[in-house]
Amino acid sequence: MVTTNKVNVEEQAKLAKKAAKTLSLLTTEEKNEALLTLADTIDNEYETILIANEKDLENGRQQGHDAAFIDRLTLTKERIEEFAQGLRQVAELDDPTGIINSDWVLDNGLKVQQITVPLGVIGMIYEARPNVTVDATGLALKSGNAIVLKGGSSAIISNKTIVEVIHRGLEQTKIPKEAVQFIASTDREATQQLFTMKEHIDVLIPRGGGSLIKAVVNNATVPVLETGVGNCHLYIDAEADVKKALAILVNAKTDRPAVCNALETAIIHQDWLSANKDALIETLRAHDIHVHGDSTIMKLIPGAVPASEDDWANEYLSKDIAIKTVTNLTEATQHIEDYGTKHSEAIITENQETADKFMKLVDAAALYHNASTRFTDGGALGFGAEIGISTQKLHARGPMGLPALTTIKYLMHGDGQIR
Amino acid sequence: MVTTNKVNVEEQAKLAKKAAKTLSLLTTEEKNEALLTLADTIDNEYETILIANEKDLENGRQQGHDAAFIDRLTLTKERIEEFAQGLRQVAELDDPTGIINSDWVLDNGLKVQQITVPLGVIGMIYEARPNVTVDATGLALKSGNAIVLKGGSSAIISNKTIVEVIHRGLEQTKIPKEAVQFIASTDREATQQLFTMKEHIDVLIPRGGGSLIKAVVNNATVPVLETGVGNCHLYIDAEADVKKALAILVNAKTDRPAVCNALETAIIHQDWLSANKDALIETLRAHDIHVHGDSTIMKLIPGAVPASEDDWANEYLSKDIAIKTVTNLTEATQHIEDYGTKHSEAIITENQETADKFMKLVDAAALYHNASTRFTDGGALGFGAEIGISTQKLHARGPMGLPALTTIKYLMHGDGQIR
Repeated sequence: MVTTNKVNVEEQAKLAKKAAKTLSLLTTEEKNEALLTLADTIDNEYETILIANEKDLENGRQQGHDAAFIDRLTLTKERIEEFAQGLRQVAELDDPTGIINSDWVLDNGLKVQQITVPLGVIGMIYEARPNVTVDATGLALKSGNAIVLKGGSSAIISNKTIVEVIHRGLEQTKIPKEAVQFIASTDREATQQLFTMKEHIDVLIPRGGGSLIKAVVNNATVPVLETGVGNCHLYIDAEADVKKALAILVNAKTDRPAVCNALETAIIHQDWLSANKDALIETLRAHDIHVHGDSTIMKLIPGAVPASEDDWANEYLSKDIAIKTVTNLTEATQHIEDYGTKHSEAIITENQETADKFMKLVDAAALYHNASTRFTDGGALGFGAEIGISTQKLHARGPMGLPALTTIKYLMHGDGQIR
Repeated sequence: MVTTNKVNVEEQAKLAKKAAKTLSLLTTEEKNEALLTLADTIDNEYETILIANEKDLENGRQQGHDAAFIDRLTLTKERIEEFAQGLRQVAELDDPTGIINSDWVLDNGLKVQQITVPLGVIGMIYEARPNVTVDATGLALKSGNAIVLKGGSSAIISNKTIVEVIHRGLEQTKIPKEAVQFIASTDREATQQLFTMKEHIDVLIPRGGGSLIKAVVNNATVPVLETGVGNCHLYIDAEADVKKALAILVNAKTDRPAVCNALETAIIHQDWLSANKDALIETLRAHDIHVHGDSTIMKLIPGAVPASEDDWANEYLSKDIAIKTVTNLTEATQHIEDYGTKHSEAIITENQETADKFMKLVDAAALYHNASTRFTDGGALGFGAEIGISTQKLHARGPMGLPALTTIKYLMHGDGQIR
């Protein structure tokens, strides 16, 4: 294990802040050229990254991590090429800064512009996957921001090496390499220092499990863009089409159970359940979905186990599902309000009025009528790139593309106006 | 003194959350009618409010508050009529909710809409002025939000009575009166409860002095819209026009010294200072401006006192000014970065290139070239109404009108799309 606890987090953040100023003066072309250079450097140095990754993998195996964990940590030549390709794609996206959202002239002649500008310094706190190191760096630089990266300890050698490669790449560009800072420490204190560094860090973005996100939200005085936890619901209304309902249930639950837009709880109207019990049971069995149910479900579905309070609140991230029965829409929306995480919620119904009411009453980033919750994703929605999925309401909600990494300035040009 | 410490803050926040749901289903017309009814009710019941205000004033005098404090607290028939008129103006503004920002169709036929919706429940924590009670209520209701009000203890009887009047008005409308909650307690604990009530309150907006805002930012886990502290700078460049520079200095410093967009520090290029020393001295004397200066200023300006570290950092909110001399733009922007609060910063220069560089390098909500910082104000910029001036970068920056009280939802309409 590498533990370099003597990193000076504040010093790194200060360097990032200074680099952000230089970065904010670069043109779109200069930023794009830098991203392309970075992509080439990563392609050229893939072997260096693979060697570092092998050390992380060895540590991971020694610590007895499971196959899924090791898989997420594993880099290959192809995966590294995808990192580089991702940077080239970001270079092709529109620059989100320097856009004049609106401009007007006051009666006294003062010219007012509202213009988009970089946020400044982004603090990224994330867990195992090393791809975040490259993806987040690319999005930050494209939007004119410096970035301070604090990755998980299990990938620390890979991440540190990737950032060293990035630095070698940046040395050939107009972006100062200090714009990308990596906190090379496994010390929790290093992370906590980022929480309160308001002077040097403009926003913290945590990406990872619920406990990581909670720790950041509860302890940070730096503004946070909260991402990711998705306790998503599917409400099957009395007037739901059975084919759509079952196909969407299976897709949302089993396509990728471990991601945040996967389904965790189905809420089923009792009339629909009575009419479609056998089809539901057969579908669940065919797809190996393990049911945690309320008392009605326990009586109807063979093999179901009783759902506890925890079942309604947790993300399974597996092929488990909680199922609750209700007698009307209000019970359904109330359950979502009580247990939902404001991420993605779906209703299956042929009644447009019921669908509209559901969409008005339920408070979430993404609301679906007769479609799978799996579409809550920057890629699927055509955003080009995604820094995360916001479950908060301020600044950015739902999938966040490059514009989420900008703020605005009002620029006023006058010739002596006073009030 | 009224101290009703047994208020149940959580219960009130829950009621607000419930009322927010009803409110979110109302039409623009229903909300506007309610605001007009509220305005009439306030006009009709002005005497009730005046009687309550007299009690606050008596308490204030007994506690030895100064004339300025008493003035801010004092209501008159005219001021109350202005409250009502303010509500009528808000009724005339465009509804910021229900606006489809963008919509598109995915290749699979899934229809995607990004639409503006109310935030939900706004927690407003504010100091003496009772007008905030009415202004914030009007803006919250117009944007479809419920509001929980926690005013300062010195105005508690006035505020409580105003909310009672608002409740009597709302009873005649489609807006549930529970949408406006007043925490009738002078207990600090009641305020602190609001800080962490994430389940029931969607955003906290503190309005008042620096210490109030700091307490909210440092202790709240509910997202905060940070408002108001303005340590504003005026940089007089070597190439500044002397008439513009002096007129703007006087206006920004003396027009209303106690507001957040007033000038606190002038940064003067030494070449300009050498050339225009006499005019500057004469202007400062004529307008009774008290100078705290660096060593250069101390030698030049009669009556100046030495500026300490505190002078550079604090808002005077009086006719005091700190003056620093510099030899170039970088020194000026560095000083602003070290001591500014990212509110409003101005440069006076006839050199457009210098002005543009200043505007790029300085990180603040509003940047002025040859104009007074006093224009950072929703009213002055034509926003129609203002809930506060944001000094943060996320969600809203600068003067915040009705759109700052909204968030977005993605609505997806499909016919069975899966991924």
